[in-house]
Amino acid sequence: MNVTVWNENVHEKTEPAVLEVHPHGLHETLKGIIQEIPEAKVRVATLDMPSAGLPQEVLDTTDVLVWWAHMAHEKVPDDVVDAVCKRVLAGMGLIVLHSGHYSKVLQRLLGTTCDLRWRDGAYERLFCIEPSHPIAEGIPPVIELGIDECYGERFDIPKPDDVIFSGWFDIGETFRSGCTWTRGYGKIFYFQPGHETNRSYYNPHVRRIIQNACKWACPKVYRGEFGAPEIRPTLEESRLGPETSAK
Amino acid sequence: MNVTVWNENVHEKTEPAVLEVHPHGLHETLKGIIQEIPEAKVRVATLDMPSAGLPQEVLDTTDVLVWWAHMAHEKVPDDVVDAVCKRVLAGMGLIVLHSGHYSKVLQRLLGTTCDLRWRDGAYERLFCIEPSHPIAEGIPPVIELGIDECYGERFDIPKPDDVIFSGWFDIGETFRSGCTWTRGYGKIFYFQPGHETNRSYYNPHVRRIIQNACKWACPKVYRGEFGAPEIRPTLEESRLGPETSAK
Amino acid sequence: MNVTVWNENVHEKTEPAVLEVHPHGLHETLKGIIQEIPEAKVRVATLDMPSAGLPQEVLDTTDVLVWWAHMAHEKVPDDVVDAVCKRVLAGMGLIVLHSGHYSKVLQRLLGTTCDLRWRDGAYERLFCIEPSHPIAEGIPPVIELGIDECYGERFDIPKPDDVIFSGWFDIGETFRSGCTWTRGYGKIFYFQPGHETNRSYYNPHVRRIIQNACKWACPKVYRGEFGAPEIRPTLEESRLGPETSAK
Amino acid sequence: MNVTVWNENVHEKTEPAVLEVHPHGLHETLKGIIQEIPEAKVRVATLDMPSAGLPQEVLDTTDVLVWWAHMAHEKVPDDVVDAVCKRVLAGMGLIVLHSGHYSKVLQRLLGTTCDLRWRDGAYERLFCIEPSHPIAEGIPPVIELGIDECYGERFDIPKPDDVIFSGWFDIGETFRSGCTWTRGYGKIFYFQPGHETNRSYYNPHVRRIIQNACKWACPKVYRGEFGAPEIRPTLEESRLGPETSAK
Repeated sequence: MNVTVWNENVHEKTEPAVLEVHPHGLHETLKGIIQEIPEAKVRVATLDMPSAGLPQEVLDTTDVLVWWAHMAHEKVPDDVVDAVCKRVLAGMGLIVLHSGHYSKVLQRLLGTTCDLRWRDGAYERLFCIEPSHPIAEGIPPVIELGIDECYGERFDIPKPDDVIFSGWFDIGETFRSGCTWTRGYGKIFYFQPGHETNRSYYNPHVRRIIQNACKWACPKVYRGEFGAPEIRPTLEESRLGPETSAK
Repeated sequence: MNVTVWNENVHEKTEPAVLEVHPHGLHETLKGIIQEIPEAKVRVATLDMPSAGLPQEVLDTTDVLVWWAHMAHEKVPDDVVDAVCKRVLAGMGLIVLHSGHYSKVLQRLLGTTCDLRWRDGAYERLFCIEPSHPIAEGIPPVIELGIDECYGERFDIPKPDDVIFSGWFDIGETFRSGCTWTRGYGKIFYFQPGHETNRSYYNPHVRRIIQNACKWACPKVYRGEFGAPEIRPTLEESRLGPETSAK
Repeated sequence: MNVTVWNENVHEKTEPAVLEVHPHGLHETLKGIIQEIPEAKVRVATLDMPSAGLPQEVLDTTDVLVWWAHMAHEKVPDDVVDAVCKRVLAGMGLIVLHSGHYSKVLQRLLGTTCDLRWRDGAYERLFCIEPSHPIAEGIPPVIELGIDECYGERFDIPKPDDVIFSGWFDIGETFRSGCTWTRGYGKIFYFQPGHETNRSYYNPHVRRIIQNACKWACPKVYRGEFGAPEIRPTLEESRLGPETSAK
Repeated sequence: MNVTVWNENVHEKTEPAVLEVHPHGLHETLKGIIQEIPEAKVRVATLDMPSAGLPQEVLDTTDVLVWWAHMAHEKVPDDVVDAVCKRVLAGMGLIVLHSGHYSKVLQRLLGTTCDLRWRDGAYERLFCIEPSHPIAEGIPPVIELGIDECYGERFDIPKPDDVIFSGWFDIGETFRSGCTWTRGYGKIFYFQPGHETNRSYYNPHVRRIIQNACKWACPKVYRGEFGAPEIRPTLEESRLGPETSAK
């Protein structure tokens, strides 16, 4: 399983408070989470690299892309967004974290604004409401997450395949904090925790959820096209074929 | 209910066989269907009009947009696509017909290629598999549709909110022929029948389905934004407000 | 639209605090809500009536059944439960309120325990997360509900068709407070507010939600059976029939 | 992974044509499919055994139950049905095959009649419409199944979590042939092929699908109860606990 962690890497250059929590950048913190998966090979990519860190050869060898972004969504080149989305439709898993909800990649794959309401710094509890989902494996019914950024409904997303986690914030908000969708052959997971100055990515349950999500989203097969332009063979032709089990 | 029927109006200029079936163009045939809804006011718009027939003032006064297209998807200007999608997210209903599955509008709202397999001219039956959905009101369990273009799976769409109609083709294909999605405040219905040289739009059940879909997709309210950028008031402030029913 | 409000009517006989809030019983409070729908005719039925208030002739003339229960779920006779479920499958709408989540009727239609966690008396906010659903018509994005019984996840229900309302409780819980399902031809809405000693049913938004739900769940048609035992006619026979639109 | 194959074992005693296809009974044919999963241990159980082959100690050591039945649904004792459903809610996977759609077990877990239309012996194609689902792993886009019993819509089931396979029959029917649901902690898969006198269970793709389904439905964990009756601890108490990641 080849995982690429993408981080816009902007806060890290301007806000000392972020480096206190993530001394080597959010991408290295996230890389550390993925590295705990025995079968995973992890690379990091950042916006300041050539091709925003995601040239075609990187995408072509990525099974799961983890995406953290906040301030620079508009700076991701449209051709990179195109290439990422095309790769997801062909099967690459996509894990979008926290403020990545506003990324062009997620907006394009979901078709909505991914808008929400927010305020800094509230106490959050996370409830696991689909406990038999693979992403919830080993996760307790309730996680006392502590302080993270407060996100509030309405979250402008299409109906998820599954809402696995529901967030509760002490200042009066609730949020669909862990959601899945399928697009083409690709699986997508959005997960709300992870403000740049909070420590959610050091919570062992949060780490396990991100690890589970990578395993769940990793494709078994890539398929480049969905159908031939014409339907062949006809039924009559196909009935003569070798595959039938008709008696 | 203000309905705008959009047709690319290309076949009509080059293929006499289309005019045999739709003497005044597909848009007029479709307009005739909508006009049977007592509360509907219908306009037509075509690609050859200024702004592709959909300037902002038309969109701003459209509750439901019906979309038929086939050969000229790429000729629809991107700013028109943007404006249509934005209006759908704000609440406008969207009914996409037949080969409109490849329209930029639907692809952008769904986030997938909307690819499928196809062959001209097969006998089709339509099964109603969600009979209590408003779009199925008055529709029998099975419609003997007759000849239409054969569409085959896999149809590259996100999981629909509802698959209301399932199509069966005698040459060996089945298709999710009537699907709904919600995007933002807007409702979307895709309906497969309606090849330009076939007569499905004269089938009374097909007409009823399109009419039902317009009524179902017509918004009760438009909302331009999904949330204020910050969460206000706090719970403590709000508890003092007049709206509470606390004893 | 014929609505029947069913109430177990047990608290009313033993707890004076309930009569302070609902002087004529919860059924009369709920009847008052439904009566504000111009097209509705409302009856009340209670557990202490013959056939638990729901003989076949009452069910046969009921379009929407509203169900409030708490202490006496086991006392509802199984043949009444059978008859109610059968009527729902044939198209009758069902609105289950608050502690009715444990009713045999809902458990049988959903197939799960409908278990949850609870504690008396917390401050609740209700978020509207599917604003374009008919049940949300006219409802603001957030309702300051005030004090009601606190219900907590995991709520053991099958994945809802729609989660329209999400509840937030100040003591640290969140809940899928407004959920829909379809069973057979019947529509079901579960709505969490309404503890017997709280005043949620006097909140104008809660009243509107219950009214919207009755209108949404009211069937257009009843169908007693889902399919003939054998498939007839064959395609060849049917092609000769009068319904085809084939050219 | 402990799999139990349950077969009513009635046809086998009275219809020689069934023994021609399944010389040791359908349960042994199905056991042979499961045995090809390296990590699986398989037992068979039949209606004519004590406790219908499913005493509590068998259920307690079963991770996935495969169910084939046709003529004797009513002969399965209600207490066995209760115990099976309870075990599914606690996490046991359930694979219901072909005419098992009418089993009391499936009806109770889904809450509907599971009614459908049928006719013996038609040519069937199976389309894979959710190719990234684990049950579809290794399965081609189309399977030429050959002759099996024809099932037709409307299939009276609740909306599935996923419709993975769509069946096409040459006599004019289409069917949701492979469907999943979640109930409690348990996963359910219904799969249409497998009439007792046809050879679908010898088709390598059908075998793979059943094997995939067992692996998908196998629980990671069993949980006997969904929630304590009261919510504890309060948020204030929990904030003092050791699990928080608040800075």
